[in-house]
This record gives sequence, structure tokens and C-alpha cells, in this order.
Amino acid sequence: MTEPTGAQRGPQVVREPGLPDRVTVYEVGPRDGLQNEDAVVPAAVKVGLVERLLDAGLPYVEATSLVHPRWVPQLADAAEVLGALVDRLGDRARDLPVLVPNERGLDRAEELGLRHVAVFASATETFARRNLNRSLDEQYAMFEPVVARARAAGMRVRAYVSMCFGDPWEGHVPVEQVVAAGRRLMDLGADQLSLGDTIGVGTPGHVIALLDALNAAGLPDDVLALHAHDTYGQALANVSAALRHGVTTFDTSAGGLGGCPYAESATGNLATEDLVWMLDGLGIDTGVSLPAVVATSAWLEPHLDHELTSRTYRALR
Amino acid sequence: MTEPTGAQRGPQVVREPGLPDRVTVYEVGPRDGLQNEDAVVPAAVKVGLVERLLDAGLPYVEATSLVHPRWVPQLADAAEVLGALVDRLGDRARDLPVLVPNERGLDRAEELGLRHVAVFASATETFARRNLNRSLDEQYAMFEPVVARARAAGMRVRAYVSMCFGDPWEGHVPVEQVVAAGRRLMDLGADQLSLGDTIGVGTPGHVIALLDALNAAGLPDDVLALHAHDTYGQALANVSAALRHGVTTFDTSAGGLGGCPYAESATGNLATEDLVWMLDGLGIDTGVSLPAVVATSAWLEPHLDHELTSRTYRALR
Repeated sequence: MTEPTGAQRGPQVVREPGLPDRVTVYEVGPRDGLQNEDAVVPAAVKVGLVERLLDAGLPYVEATSLVHPRWVPQLADAAEVLGALVDRLGDRARDLPVLVPNERGLDRAEELGLRHVAVFASATETFARRNLNRSLDEQYAMFEPVVARARAAGMRVRAYVSMCFGDPWEGHVPVEQVVAAGRRLMDLGADQLSLGDTIGVGTPGHVIALLDALNAAGLPDDVLALHAHDTYGQALANVSAALRHGVTTFDTSAGGLGGCPYAESATGNLATEDLVWMLDGLGIDTGVSLPAVVATSAWLEPHLDHELTSRTYRALR
Repeated sequence: MTEPTGAQRGPQVVREPGLPDRVTVYEVGPRDGLQNEDAVVPAAVKVGLVERLLDAGLPYVEATSLVHPRWVPQLADAAEVLGALVDRLGDRARDLPVLVPNERGLDRAEELGLRHVAVFASATETFARRNLNRSLDEQYAMFEPVVARARAAGMRVRAYVSMCFGDPWEGHVPVEQVVAAGRRLMDLGADQLSLGDTIGVGTPGHVIALLDALNAAGLPDDVLALHAHDTYGQALANVSAALRHGVTTFDTSAGGLGGCPYAESATGNLATEDLVWMLDGLGIDTGVSLPAVVATSAWLEPHLDHELTSRTYRALR
């Protein structure tokens, strides 16, 4: 049998009734992805990655984390990366979202003139203690001045809630507990909640139940994002369920960059390519060029110590 | 950070309204999976694989293909495998579905006393010519006596329709063309249609549109199965869409066994483990033990020339 001559570079477009015309793909590869890679990528490559992702049409590219270098050595060059991005992209770089773990991080964000920050909270007591060395109440106390000051400075504030669908120490996480965490963060003044399936264990009924409960607590789908990891292969099915529910912002990383620090798996975030293939097939506009994301992943891959796991990337590279 | 102590071995169960209580997982690993592996697995391993999959609770395990050895060298030992299975499992082995490409294959199935066969048709002219060396009309002419004789012998007959969502030579495949193929095969006397996304390009709206069109042509969801390949990472999202539509039979292979002969990808069928994780999370009964499937994949993996690609398998192994 000879080689296929008409192999598809994109899906056949067939709309699904009831879905939105447009979806926001929020790229977290340079931050959540690289933070969970063993390889430490040079600052110049990080800068090139962010630029290429912007050029590929991604409307949000979370550039880095202004965390103390001791805690996340992979992102120890955050200030250097952001400085280079401002040099190269000018004022546009100041709209790139950046994670700030605490007031110190916010100080640095303010010095750089950034306009979009994110805080990273836990839905569970155990992970708050392990990741932040704080109780749940203490985490809110830490974030309160961060969010208040950021809002006063006119910044947009995204709040991540991690471990929404399961916790590697506590196991199951009640939906009510996630709703309480989300409510607290929004009451502090965050304008978007990103619901993290940090260990990738969630399934579609769980996603729908959590969204229903958040809606009932006064948090509508349009302030919510789903942040799915593909550890158990569930990410796209979960995004699909959230999309039908009404959520229109989804976090991804190019190539499926990143690992899961709490599972023996090389699988990271839902891959940008896998989501864009689905949304292209559904005729939903994202503004993202699939070939450009594939080219970006292929450019980045040699800087990592493993092959990228995105199925669509691997089929198209 | 110390190692997680409560890592989950299964998802939190949260039902999704409107879904069925029970789903049939149809295991194709020993046939479609092994047929597309470069490694040729010894007959004794094939026999062990089928037995382990049955022990794991899979209600259907397609055991092999009674195809001419020249065409599929990986399954050249089909008669030996089936003979051994009858020796070991007795009459129960005769209920294992087996692919028969033509009347010659059916002759052998009859000699062995098999009670469940499958035929493999194409939805597209190009693939019919390339795979069967026949036009679409000639393929139906070939299958007509196979299905008629099988039904007359009291056998169940499954009909695969391949390239339902895209063809590597023709590109896009119109839904109407798939409906025509399905209608022809059911009119010949098949009792179940397995809709193959052979190259894994389909997306959820396409799945729904095809199911709607088949229903409108008198083929209800309860005679349909979805056979998804995970080449572009879409398989579980597509299964999820079909499940909501009303389909309750899904084809999978343990570990994601198999490759895609028409794409540069090591990704095979939707992995049994990835589907069972989702269905377990949805509280849908399959009768399948996830740990037993994971153990089976781990037992098989050393006989292959690559690592298995199932996300759930890799997280749990």
C-alpha cells in the first residue's frame, strides 16, 4: 500500500448545536508547563516560546511565575524573561498574565508595570500546607492584600484553585469544598477562577456537578475556566462537558508540556493542539493557528528531556 | 515535598444526568491492536492476553482475524490461537468474536464452531480498493454471502465501517456516504455496526451529526458501536458525545494497543483503561476491573517494541 496522499492536516468541520461561536484558549505552557519539566530551559528559549505562542494567535500566554527562585528553579529567571519580553514586545508584554505567589511577587509585578496577575490557591487543607506551608485560612489571609492591591493598581486578577477534583494526599475532594474556596477567592476580588484538575482524575459528571454548584453559589460560567491535566486521558472529555455547560475559557499547554508532580506520569496539561483540533472540528473560533502551535512545539521539544505527549502534535509534527 | 500517601487508584464517582446505567466495552486489542503492531507476538501470548481480558470482565474480546496470513502476518497464527482458546476455555471460546474477511474465513470459523463473526468494510471507495482491492459495490457483493451464511448458521454478525470520519487519501468523508454504507451492511443482515474513526480525526459535532443521520435512516443507537482511534487525542471526547447521544457500545484496546497505519503516530485504539476510568467516574457499570486491565497491559508490554500509550495505564502501572 502506498503512502496516503490526502492525509488531513485538520478535521472536517461539523458544528454541534448549542455550543458557542468563540472560545478562549489560555496558554499556560511557559508557566505551568515549564515549571513541571525536569529540564531547565534557557531564558532566551522561554522568551522565544512566549513570542511564538502569541504569534500563533493565543490571546493569553501566562509568561512565568514571580516566585522565589528557591521554590521553582525552573522559573528562577522570571525577571530576566519578563524584562526581555518588554524589550522585544514593548507595552504589549505587560498584558501577559504572570503568576504572583505573594505580596513580594506583586511588588515585582508592579515594578515591571504588569497588568494581569494570577494567584495560586488550594482547595484542600493538605495541599495548602504542602505547597504554601499555610492552612486554608492562612492562604486566604496571604492572598487578600495581593488581590486588593492588584485590583487597586488596575490589574486583572485570575485565581487558580488547585486540586478541585482530587488530592494526592486526601483523595476525594467534596464539591462543596471547592465552591467554598472559589467563593472566598472571588469575594477577595479575583475576576476569573481557573478550576484546576491538578492530578487529572476528574470525569465529566464531576465537572458538571462542580459547575452546577458554583453557578448556584453565584459564580456563573463566564467567570470560570477549566484547567485540565491529561494524566488519566480525561482532559478533553472534561473540557467537552464544561463547554456544553457554558464555560468558554480553557487552559492548555503547547505540546502537552509539563508533568504531573504528584503522579508517575510524564503527561502534563491538556495539550493546546489537542484542544484546538477539537474546536476547529466544532467550527468554534479561537484565533489560534494549529500549524503554528505545532511548529512551536517542534521548536521547543529539543530543549526538553522527553518527547512531548500531545497526540495531535505527534500526528502532525 | 514527600510522596503522596493517598494517591487515587480510581476516580471519584459523580453521575451525569441522562446517561445509561450500563455500557458495553468491546475489546479489540488482540485483533485490531496486535494487527497494527510492528512486533509479532507469539501465539501463547495472544492466548494469555485473551484469557486475561476475559478475566478482567470484558464481555467481548475480539480474538483474532481469520485473514490470509500473507496479508496480516501479525495474525498468521489465528487458527492456532483459536484452537488453543477452545482447548483452554472450552465452548466459551466459541463466543469470542473473530474477524472474517471473506467466505474462506467464514469456512474456517464454521469449522471451529464459532458463533460470532465480524466483517470489515470501508465507507470510502479509495480505501475499499486499497484495503480489499475491490470497489464499494464489489465489497458488498463479497460480504453478501458471508453475512447470509453466518446468519443462517445462527452466528451473530458485526460489521465494521472504516474511515467514517475521514480517509487518508480522500480526506473528508460525507456523512451521507457513511449512512449509505451502514444501511447496505445492515440490509445484508449484520446485527451491529461499528463506526470506525480509523485515522482518529473525528470531533464531537461530527459524531453527533453521523449518529443523527444513521438514526434518521432507521439505524438506532442500540445497533451502533463507536470504534475510536486516539491518533489526535479526540477518542474519549467523541465517545463521551456518542454516550450522551445514546450509543452504549464502545470499542477499545488494552493499553491503547495498536498503531495507526495511515498516520505517523504510535497511538492506537482508544485505550480500555482510559474509557473505564471515565465510566467508573460516571458511575456507569461495565463489569470491567480497571486494575485487572492495567495488570494485563503491564504483562503484555514487554512483548511489544514500544511503551503502551494509554494515559490511565501509564499513571497506574
